[in-house]
Amino acid sequence: MDVEIVAIGNELLLGETVDTNSPYAARRLAEIGARLSRVTVVGDDRARMRRALEEARDRVRWVITTGGLGPTRDDLTRPVVAEVFGLPLEIDAGILADVEERFRRFGYETMPASNRCQAEVPRGARVIPNTHGSAPGLIVEGRGCTFFVLPGVPAEMRALLEEGVLPVLAAANGEKAPVVRSLVVHTAGIGESALAEQLDEVLAHAEPIEVAYLPHLGMVDVRLTLAGLPRDEADRKLSDLAEKVLRLTTPYAYGTDDQTLPRAIGEALQGRGWRLAVAESMTSGELGAEITSVPGSSAWFLGGVLAYANEVKEALLGVPRDTLERHGAVSEETCRAMLAGVRRALSAEVGCAITGIAGPAGGSAEKPVGRVWIGVETPDGAQVRKLDSPGDRDEVRRRATVAALALLWRRLRPEGEPR
Amino acid sequence: MDVEIVAIGNELLLGETVDTNSPYAARRLAEIGARLSRVTVVGDDRARMRRALEEARDRVRWVITTGGLGPTRDDLTRPVVAEVFGLPLEIDAGILADVEERFRRFGYETMPASNRCQAEVPRGARVIPNTHGSAPGLIVEGRGCTFFVLPGVPAEMRALLEEGVLPVLAAANGEKAPVVRSLVVHTAGIGESALAEQLDEVLAHAEPIEVAYLPHLGMVDVRLTLAGLPRDEADRKLSDLAEKVLRLTTPYAYGTDDQTLPRAIGEALQGRGWRLAVAESMTSGELGAEITSVPGSSAWFLGGVLAYANEVKEALLGVPRDTLERHGAVSEETCRAMLAGVRRALSAEVGCAITGIAGPAGGSAEKPVGRVWIGVETPDGAQVRKLDSPGDRDEVRRRATVAALALLWRRLRPEGEPR
Repeated sequence: MDVEIVAIGNELLLGETVDTNSPYAARRLAEIGARLSRVTVVGDDRARMRRALEEARDRVRWVITTGGLGPTRDDLTRPVVAEVFGLPLEIDAGILADVEERFRRFGYETMPASNRCQAEVPRGARVIPNTHGSAPGLIVEGRGCTFFVLPGVPAEMRALLEEGVLPVLAAANGEKAPVVRSLVVHTAGIGESALAEQLDEVLAHAEPIEVAYLPHLGMVDVRLTLAGLPRDEADRKLSDLAEKVLRLTTPYAYGTDDQTLPRAIGEALQGRGWRLAVAESMTSGELGAEITSVPGSSAWFLGGVLAYANEVKEALLGVPRDTLERHGAVSEETCRAMLAGVRRALSAEVGCAITGIAGPAGGSAEKPVGRVWIGVETPDGAQVRKLDSPGDRDEVRRRATVAALALLWRRLRPEGEPR
Repeated sequence: MDVEIVAIGNELLLGETVDTNSPYAARRLAEIGARLSRVTVVGDDRARMRRALEEARDRVRWVITTGGLGPTRDDLTRPVVAEVFGLPLEIDAGILADVEERFRRFGYETMPASNRCQAEVPRGARVIPNTHGSAPGLIVEGRGCTFFVLPGVPAEMRALLEEGVLPVLAAANGEKAPVVRSLVVHTAGIGESALAEQLDEVLAHAEPIEVAYLPHLGMVDVRLTLAGLPRDEADRKLSDLAEKVLRLTTPYAYGTDDQTLPRAIGEALQGRGWRLAVAESMTSGELGAEITSVPGSSAWFLGGVLAYANEVKEALLGVPRDTLERHGAVSEETCRAMLAGVRRALSAEVGCAITGIAGPAGGSAEKPVGRVWIGVETPDGAQVRKLDSPGDRDEVRRRATVAALALLWRRLRPEGEPR
């Protein structure tokens, strides 16, 4: 069951508004076994709208339009949809009464004449009532195609999708309908290609499950998608395959779907009864902020030191001046001293440290921009790693934070478990 | 000058990724006088991609594609674009060398074979080098149309758009073309309605300049937009109006366009010869990370203490146990003690502190979730403020960070200057 969306509005094509309606609809459609096959974004232009709507009408059985239902001159969806189906526009008495009632409720004596056009609908259209705003949705049928005409305001669009569109599509699709289900395995600290090679054998036999690698700054998500089976069966197959993927990508995989790397680290710390402290130079709080994004992190996170200036590394972390002078702030030796210092200063079982050169200035031939040392120290000992990160200041900092989290996970994760 | 975008990727049609590339491109295109006339989103499906690309090719002179350039099986843009122009694929020696070099730099001995296809380009394509990732962009011409083929990762897409697409389109468009220009005045610490009242009079006479208020978590941007004039003239009119807006919104406005609140604070600190230290409980690094997003911040930022646990507030900031027991960690008294403590511990002229309850747990009738104390202390004295923030954990933390920055700005900004 293919569905297309035509999103209408100059604000979308000027970049003033991001179309979040289509991704929302996409997720909800997949869950009832429908597939979003194309999204077309056009402006408030009669000819361009008509062309896009006619093309969609001729390609698929089901079309959702969003936007262009307001009371102003640039709101053209109603008349253009009427044209596309060769239907006249007529005043719908029910809608007119609702719109007038809405104005009275907000304390206006009379409704502006411009709002009257909101009650005009293509002949024969069914109305999807809108309890969140003044523009109702419409269902218009003809020429082997059904249009669901929805407003563009996200809260209204979502409500009408749930109440007036998904039930119709689900009924048309039937209960045992094949659906599209996805499951994501999250990894950190391994590259896309290395990951793909590690998984090649098992995923070569995974069909009809589709596999996609989604890299984002030092992390790679492996998305497994299965279309064409009823929901229960699809979920069972996906989670079987996910188990294999998790096992093969140990120690880089840290969970599936909603799991986050900081939460996985927190669970591992709680399992061991250890508490964490951080010492951040270059990232100056990014690591601490990521870790405490987890609700309840106070159970296993103590705090840390933002040792941006060398004086702070000395005063609060006890990094010896001699170490800073001989090896520099960005060095294995300083990283190790920060680790020992932050564990001591905060009485923490586990320390994590980052020091590096984010740029754009501060690099040298010997230590270029992007050079980073990260480290983790537990009661079992310290481990430090050197990174040479690509990208600009933000990217260098972000990659360092992710690499530190990935190292924490590898050091703390329960032994012998695949995740 | 009409431009279309074809955004490619199953993740877009499954709703897992929101297409932020197109809105970004839309804004940048408008600024050089080009118009985004349609966006089409299709999945990683050879036939559907081909159809969408051929339709775009036949409608407009300029097409930008995003996505589908990675090394894996589902990355089909290069071969499909070649088909659309009837061109064979050939290995580009320059790209191949770059990709191999990239792998060496990251410490891999050999490049996985799958990455070799990233060097395949339609015959005659020009390469847009990609310094942010392994997939370069391409310019492919034929049949009266030019395709700019860009990667889907936003950082890479934006860089290649700036370096390889906009210069070509601007040159084709000519210098005197009417453009859409915008200028943004940034404010923090004042609400949208209060701001609108303050600006009402001057903006009532501002036509044909359009005014939009863009609120986002404690900050409000005032966007001034002027369409239909050549670039120079538009910019002159906009900056005249911006001067008035800046003057009327003192002390909340901190700059225009690319200015950021942390950078404005840094410039103010440098003007006074003072250095800053932060003490963060609830936000645990968000403030420090924001401040050091500014290149060169080491000139005026020393570091700080993430005092998440009360033990750390005592041990590193010298907050008296008695204060914590009598007033609690989220209190004016603790906030003041954190300010004094962080200035002392880091020998800083200026301290900034945040303590609060981000939730979801930890609230009480007396101190609900969202209760936050922020403070700033300079050699001229301390100032603390109580906030009761709406929203979830992320929003409470984010609003606290912005409020702390806004208070820093109001306390530090040069006297008598409008910004």
